Amino acid sequence: MKKLLYILPLFLGGFFWSQNFKQDSLQFKKISDEILVNGKSYEDLRELTKDIGNRLSGSSNYEKSADWAMKKLLEAGADQVWFQPVMVNVWTRGDESLKLRVNHGKWKEVKMLSLGNSEGTKGKDLEGEVILVKTLEDFEKLPDYAVKDKIVFFNCAFKQEFVVTGQAYGDAGKYRRVTPSEVAKKGGKAVIIRSLTSSFDDVPHTGSTRYEDGIPKIPAIAIGAESADYLEEILLKKQKVQAVLNSNCGMNGQMMTKSVIGEIKGKSDEKVIVVGAHLDSWDVGEGAHDDGAGIVQSIEVLRTFKNLKLKNNHTIRVVCFANEENGVRGGRTYMETVKKSEEPHIFALESDSGGFTPRSFSLGMHPDKAKSMKSWEKLFNPYGIYEFAGDHSGVDIEPLRELKIPASGLVTDSQRYFDIHHTPEDTFEKVNRRELLLGAVVMTQLIYMVDKNW
Amino acid sequence: MKKLLYILPLFLGGFFWSQNFKQDSLQFKKISDEILVNGKSYEDLRELTKDIGNRLSGSSNYEKSADWAMKKLLEAGADQVWFQPVMVNVWTRGDESLKLRVNHGKWKEVKMLSLGNSEGTKGKDLEGEVILVKTLEDFEKLPDYAVKDKIVFFNCAFKQEFVVTGQAYGDAGKYRRVTPSEVAKKGGKAVIIRSLTSSFDDVPHTGSTRYEDGIPKIPAIAIGAESADYLEEILLKKQKVQAVLNSNCGMNGQMMTKSVIGEIKGKSDEKVIVVGAHLDSWDVGEGAHDDGAGIVQSIEVLRTFKNLKLKNNHTIRVVCFANEENGVRGGRTYMETVKKSEEPHIFALESDSGGFTPRSFSLGMHPDKAKSMKSWEKLFNPYGIYEFAGDHSGVDIEPLRELKIPASGLVTDSQRYFDIHHTPEDTFEKVNRRELLLGAVVMTQLIYMVDKNW
Repeated sequence: MKKLLYILPLFLGGFFWSQNFKQDSLQFKKISDEILVNGKSYEDLRELTKDIGNRLSGSSNYEKSADWAMKKLLEAGADQVWFQPVMVNVWTRGDESLKLRVNHGKWKEVKMLSLGNSEGTKGKDLEGEVILVKTLEDFEKLPDYAVKDKIVFFNCAFKQEFVVTGQAYGDAGKYRRVTPSEVAKKGGKAVIIRSLTSSFDDVPHTGSTRYEDGIPKIPAIAIGAESADYLEEILLKKQKVQAVLNSNCGMNGQMMTKSVIGEIKGKSDEKVIVVGAHLDSWDVGEGAHDDGAGIVQSIEVLRTFKNLKLKNNHTIRVVCFANEENGVRGGRTYMETVKKSEEPHIFALESDSGGFTPRSFSLGMHPDKAKSMKSWEKLFNPYGIYEFAGDHSGVDIEPLRELKIPASGLVTDSQRYFDIHHTPEDTFEKVNRRELLLGAVVMTQLIYMVDKNW
Repeated sequence: MKKLLYILPLFLGGFFWSQNFKQDSLQFKKISDEILVNGKSYEDLRELTKDIGNRLSGSSNYEKSADWAMKKLLEAGADQVWFQPVMVNVWTRGDESLKLRVNHGKWKEVKMLSLGNSEGTKGKDLEGEVILVKTLEDFEKLPDYAVKDKIVFFNCAFKQEFVVTGQAYGDAGKYRRVTPSEVAKKGGKAVIIRSLTSSFDDVPHTGSTRYEDGIPKIPAIAIGAESADYLEEILLKKQKVQAVLNSNCGMNGQMMTKSVIGEIKGKSDEKVIVVGAHLDSWDVGEGAHDDGAGIVQSIEVLRTFKNLKLKNNHTIRVVCFANEENGVRGGRTYMETVKKSEEPHIFALESDSGGFTPRSFSLGMHPDKAKSMKSWEKLFNPYGIYEFAGDHSGVDIEPLRELKIPASGLVTDSQRYFDIHHTPEDTFEKVNRRELLLGAVVMTQLIYMVDKNW
């Protein structure tokens, strides 16, 4: 009898656990069926990318996309929708070109993109000799006179051996971020970097760079992998390469724009669950994977809660963040607002890894919460997710972690992302319908579990 | 002391297991680095698809691809390479067209493909009224007079709710295989099926059909999803649809062709490990995912064993099978040869799910062997594989299971495969370099484990 008293709670616990598991599995299947059969994210993405196109914050296209997002959130069934004002720095590109010539030969035009937030040549030709550096370590060894008045070309390739391409991006990312100021410190004129790309084509990739305070802001551009290989080959032969850069990019003051927010109220309380992505994109391509995909998936989550009448306990709030690409002001503003209002938030989820097949969720949260989330992993196996891992979330929701709000990012299959990331090639055609929808499926399932259990 | 005697073996066992795990992990990393950095499969695939193109067995292109495969295997370092003669039935397509008209209106041409192995109209116009059937169950209920002299259109759509698209393909597959004879039994003239596709575009998908013995062989074709939706819409409105089909496809006798085999000898014995794919493809597109990808990956396995000097215990044999698409004579011939020679085989692996991100390996083997293979799962986690499952292998190696040879198939991310499978869209451009290489990585790792442990 005594033994039974010990065993009974264990037995009952197991029984309820397995009943719960069964119910959750059934709910997961309903969510999956609904989205895979009736999901609208793919058609939404077609509208966002084809009817509007790319949408850097500060552009008129961004303003159009904000109106579009508000309309879509209302159509999806949001109880209320609003704009959250966000002040952003405006950067514009304008015309730009790069020409190279070898040993006083013919000038040859090379595909290029100025890095985001960089200064240009103000429409004047900037001419200089190009020197090759493979790594920042090599650059540090160069004396100032070797750099002075030169255009420094950093040809550090993406490390193909990383299985997860995001790691290669992280590894090579510093070449985009820090080289302009480092070169300027030694008197260099401009910087050319090899694009942060997993591909071997000739497509240049843009993306933010930074300038250190008090250091001259020299122009910084990216060229495609093929051009980079060509340039290295010539320079290694000790041939003299002259470059002419002409660009018009630069910062153009500030502007008040907005993030777009829509929510459905919970039946139990006023606690908030955020699911979001960034509405802005770079000013090339269509911002389809980055991050139109995350926007339409987040809206799909809300729509699915409505369509399936899932009766959420907490408020489910979709946030379409402004300005992730060149300032993260949308994410910071949202956090500041939550901080001020002390509105309780129990979770934030971001999709900003492209509309590829979902593979995991990250665990940007206290170990106790991470443990709770990990206990749901098995439910996700039929949807191709086997392991939650990684102490990160998403660029826009990472500020919320300062307020101790648990945050997670959708992790997708990474193989194709950095072939097209921040390029004219990031178009609707590169997104597969089912891969995109599956992302929305697992996001909705995760929000369902958080809403029910936290 | 006694306690120690119990614990020591456990402890030592654990110690050796963890040492083994460490060594295997290091070897896995070497294999991965080698292929992701130096792998040649992508360039090989470019040659196979762009220099040769599609290659149905019986075609001159197939013969060219056999010569190419032999050359590639030698370049990869095979100790010996040979052709295995395979007798195949030759099917050819020729010109073909389908026109529809509604209520005596204008004739409108519709994109179509005759199903593989089907008979055509011998260049004559076959005209008839089209009737719509949604499922085979509905068709069975139709009286013969309702079918007689009609062209029966089966519009059974791929079930989008299957997360793994192969299950939707399996589910809808019978419409391609059995409908021609079923319709002929009731006196129908021809069959039109909705393509077996996960997409909603207008691309028709070919693929094998079958005729029952003693039943008239009526023409059978596939149309794209858009055309199928259009046709259903009209027919549901009770409008009269007339079709004219003109085609020249049919069987054209037999021909002796070949599978291509290359191997590296093992250092310990004469036991054989097979790794393969099918060299033939349908006669449209470029057979890039199906199954050029598997061919170049299999060759990459051999090349990597050579380049890394992995010193295999057993013979590692690459088999490029003939005739998977419309007869499986390559697979059957290989099995018959093994059966006759009694050459000992310990394992066979096939890659025929497209060159997408690898997700799993199937377990077409005795539960004891499956258990052994499953004990290696953790080693594959860093490469995105978490679970081996499923009692199947690959179409070409499945016959080997009759000889009790353990067989496994590379399972890939399935979302995009059936958008382009058996279509003009299955081209090199649809294959991602890194996804293809990653498949070769895990295949080589698996062969390494089998070679070392079995």
